Amino acid sequence: MKYDKNDKTSFAIGMFATYEIVNTMPNHVVGVYYTKNIKITEDVVALFDFCKKNNIELLERTKFVESLSGKENVHIVCEFKKYIQTLNAGNHLALVNPSDMGNLGTIFRTSLGLGIKNIALVKPCADIFNPKVVRASMGAIFKLNIELFDDFESYVAKFKNNQIFTFCLDGKQYLQQTQVDNAKPFTLVFGNEATGLPDKVANMGTKIKIKQSKDVDSFNLAISVAMAEYHFTKNA
Amino acid sequence: MKYDKNDKTSFAIGMFATYEIVNTMPNHVVGVYYTKNIKITEDVVALFDFCKKNNIELLERTKFVESLSGKENVHIVCEFKKYIQTLNAGNHLALVNPSDMGNLGTIFRTSLGLGIKNIALVKPCADIFNPKVVRASMGAIFKLNIELFDDFESYVAKFKNNQIFTFCLDGKQYLQQTQVDNAKPFTLVFGNEATGLPDKVANMGTKIKIKQSKDVDSFNLAISVAMAEYHFTKNA
Repeated sequence: MKYDKNDKTSFAIGMFATYEIVNTMPNHVVGVYYTKNIKITEDVVALFDFCKKNNIELLERTKFVESLSGKENVHIVCEFKKYIQTLNAGNHLALVNPSDMGNLGTIFRTSLGLGIKNIALVKPCADIFNPKVVRASMGAIFKLNIELFDDFESYVAKFKNNQIFTFCLDGKQYLQQTQVDNAKPFTLVFGNEATGLPDKVANMGTKIKIKQSKDVDSFNLAISVAMAEYHFTKNA
Repeated sequence: MKYDKNDKTSFAIGMFATYEIVNTMPNHVVGVYYTKNIKITEDVVALFDFCKKNNIELLERTKFVESLSGKENVHIVCEFKKYIQTLNAGNHLALVNPSDMGNLGTIFRTSLGLGIKNIALVKPCADIFNPKVVRASMGAIFKLNIELFDDFESYVAKFKNNQIFTFCLDGKQYLQQTQVDNAKPFTLVFGNEATGLPDKVANMGTKIKIKQSKDVDSFNLAISVAMAEYHFTKNA
């Protein structure tokens, strides 16, 4: 794997993610690389034309693509410059110290699908530009605003108008019975996969628990986020 | 990896899954194996005592455990006999041709957490007893009834009283606006991760679509199932 989190560029692996970034932020694209075995479909022809018209470097780099993806059925990758973003006002998701890259990508895809386009991440957290995250997001990462914060207090200081809902196993109110006031922007806050939210952060908002049977310990983080986002957006 | 889908036994990897199966179905347990580096916590002492009292084979098999789990921080596995189940009447989830083992385990955990304990699987589908599924389910698989069917028609013939809701991208009705009648048992039906439900199956129920932004192609299968199960159980 030719990627390091300190690199200034990262990679979108596969046709789908390449297509997303080339179309949504072509000025961040460094190059598009393909294997000699790529099947020349209509989509590939269109992508290659787009690269040529926009002066995006287009190279056959078979071994590089194969070693980067680790999969034989991947024939295209896109190298892009990492970028810094800031959040817009509106409904937000905030993840405090998320560590699983697959979860993070899945959460990005879910959030975008439900129209929550601004995501705050509190450090330390998984490298959002790691190719595994990009891949799990199915390219959704390129259509989101994602801002990193040193601590949750810094986030709250910047978005004072948002109603804060913190998700924890000792929440006093069930998500299922929570009334959603669409007039005010909300922020849904989740902690680390293993350790949850620190008490200090949990106490900074309305503490919510997802009602569940005693048969399970808790839900997977990406699943919890999906249920919460679904609940808060379903009547929007 | 010393596991084959044709084997008569499989493995629960790690303390959590081992604990679940030893407690929920001790008569299916063949043996509990541990590494010489296992940390003797209170939980481990209790587990070992339980095995001794119930004549469950308890062996130090360091290399076997390490090669099976592929992870250095796993020190215990449980070998168990695979078993055949049949569904009880009630609310069901039905998955037609699911192929991703991680998704399947996550779906098992979510379903159990939301109280949907009966799951129909239509073949071909991923091997439910593969250690990857067991692990992703966090042991939830041992508390569910999971029945395999050759086709969806066989399932419907057996559970004629259930209201069938089929999830597909061309559904005419949004999940978000679907009224749930708690008086009747429901079956939520989902297709394969890549190909979705065959039209023939989709037309056997009320076709539902999860409302989403145009920015994403679709949701991940485990996420879609979670939102649907959440919606159908939230007022139960």
